[in-house]
Amino acid sequence: MKARLTNINFINPIQIQIQQVEERMRAHTNGYLIELGEAIDHLLTSGGKRIRPAVALLTGGMLGGNPERLVALGASIELLHTATLVHDDLIDGSLMRRGIETLNAKWSPAATVLTGDFIFAQAAKLAAETESVILMKLFARTLATIVNGELAQFFSMRKLANRNDYYQRIYAKTASLFELATQAAAYLSPVGSEVVESVRQLGYDIGMAFQIVDDILDFTGEQATIGKPVASDLRQGLITLPTLLFMEIYPNNSEIEKIIQNNSSSAEDFDRLIESIRASGVIDKAKEEAGRFVDNARLILTAQPASPERDALEELATYIINRSL
Amino acid sequence: MKARLTNINFINPIQIQIQQVEERMRAHTNGYLIELGEAIDHLLTSGGKRIRPAVALLTGGMLGGNPERLVALGASIELLHTATLVHDDLIDGSLMRRGIETLNAKWSPAATVLTGDFIFAQAAKLAAETESVILMKLFARTLATIVNGELAQFFSMRKLANRNDYYQRIYAKTASLFELATQAAAYLSPVGSEVVESVRQLGYDIGMAFQIVDDILDFTGEQATIGKPVASDLRQGLITLPTLLFMEIYPNNSEIEKIIQNNSSSAEDFDRLIESIRASGVIDKAKEEAGRFVDNARLILTAQPASPERDALEELATYIINRSL
Repeated sequence: MKARLTNINFINPIQIQIQQVEERMRAHTNGYLIELGEAIDHLLTSGGKRIRPAVALLTGGMLGGNPERLVALGASIELLHTATLVHDDLIDGSLMRRGIETLNAKWSPAATVLTGDFIFAQAAKLAAETESVILMKLFARTLATIVNGELAQFFSMRKLANRNDYYQRIYAKTASLFELATQAAAYLSPVGSEVVESVRQLGYDIGMAFQIVDDILDFTGEQATIGKPVASDLRQGLITLPTLLFMEIYPNNSEIEKIIQNNSSSAEDFDRLIESIRASGVIDKAKEEAGRFVDNARLILTAQPASPERDALEELATYIINRSL
Repeated sequence: MKARLTNINFINPIQIQIQQVEERMRAHTNGYLIELGEAIDHLLTSGGKRIRPAVALLTGGMLGGNPERLVALGASIELLHTATLVHDDLIDGSLMRRGIETLNAKWSPAATVLTGDFIFAQAAKLAAETESVILMKLFARTLATIVNGELAQFFSMRKLANRNDYYQRIYAKTASLFELATQAAAYLSPVGSEVVESVRQLGYDIGMAFQIVDDILDFTGEQATIGKPVASDLRQGLITLPTLLFMEIYPNNSEIEKIIQNNSSSAEDFDRLIESIRASGVIDKAKEEAGRFVDNARLILTAQPASPERDALEELATYIINRSL
């Protein structure tokens, strides 16, 4: 199985470890139901750029961390991410993700819940294979943060949000796991607490930028490419940064609130609103906001001794801000 | 909050620690959604005899284990059990458990999936608080075993089973967690690998007996007491020990197979079959089978130095075999 980042430069210093992550994620299903191994294969084949393991491996590489434990960490983080996606797709009733059928489409809800649970178990097993108790605690706390955030998002659908709500939400949803990737990599490396804290912030900044760009791409992508309607979040009543910025420009426009909060708003109502948002210039403003997080990340990297991994992390930050779908 | 075993003698040596387990399970929800803390309170209040933490605490006490870490272990095991019940109730569509509304009845499926996930995270956090990497690995493996077993059970509904299938199923469903309780308690105690193995077997035997008795009570209980129809497992197409023993007496009775495997069997068909099973003497035979596991457990305990905890574990084994609903 080939890793998915081989054509991207920042992967160069960690080619071998990314392959090892790939293998570790698929191992350890012997003795369990064949269907579970197949489900994990299906999920892992259906995509993902392994960007979270890449961040963990590059950070650990930059800090001289234990290579074998970093591979276990990378595999653990990607499986944790995969498990949350499985339960997410179930909750949304999504039938497709990245152009491939979700488990939810192929299996019953019962089997999907249990498969997600099984992948959590495999992720926890890999986390334990780092042999680090502090990392296990971070792992458990991050899972709690992610799930708490999803539940908060679920309760806040069709409610208006402010910038602070939004930041909390994307931290829980995305940045917390990037933060785990860098912080845990530092714990597996011979560095002091100041460096741990500094690369934790690095993961946070990269993760926040990553999710803001995701939320931008939801607005700018074409339905054929992203496999779901443009601005699908907004259509479900979920307010992300472009909409927030648009509402800041037109603070007294009750029309916007009405469309978002009204369960019976039509697709045409949303089409009009989405067109206004796209034409308003807020997409560029949102990109600037993501850019500020990437600038912070670069600043943190500048303070680290030069290394191929440091350079690769800088490239990764650039990739995150410039990527398209 | 009072523990639920205070009127049972075997709890005497661990009164204080059981209260601490109770507190640890409810702690650590600060900073998360209020609804999650409330859901955990609801779930923990709605019952459970804390028999798994009791087994862990008594085993650890018998072996001179670290009291604080044993409390974290006990709380972790009970929360792991609770999380699997939450997802189980969702999968079954159960609205009641032990006479109290399930989360599934109060909440949407989405919120229920996520609450189960959150409780897994809290269980993992408590497992990490034992500060033992080997225990974390056991914890992750046990979760994988339980979930794999549930999925296997899900796939095998309305299929005929043999004794071996049944043992595998109740190991995954119940005995694996009792085994974790005793084995992990031994790892938190100053004992060698022979004692670890011997108390692992103790947990296995207690857990197997526990589930066989549960399966007997499903046949002998009255609907008003157990809150579900008599022999609800069989009515759902799930074959447990009493039915297996009955089929061994009448190996060529295709009538039994037809009722079990036919999706359109009526409640009356099942009533007749269940009455035949209850009248056939297999309930006593099943009790003897549970008794053999308890005898094994007692034999293992006899080899341990005398202590109040050892005596309490003997009482606990007796309680398991004699309990009613």
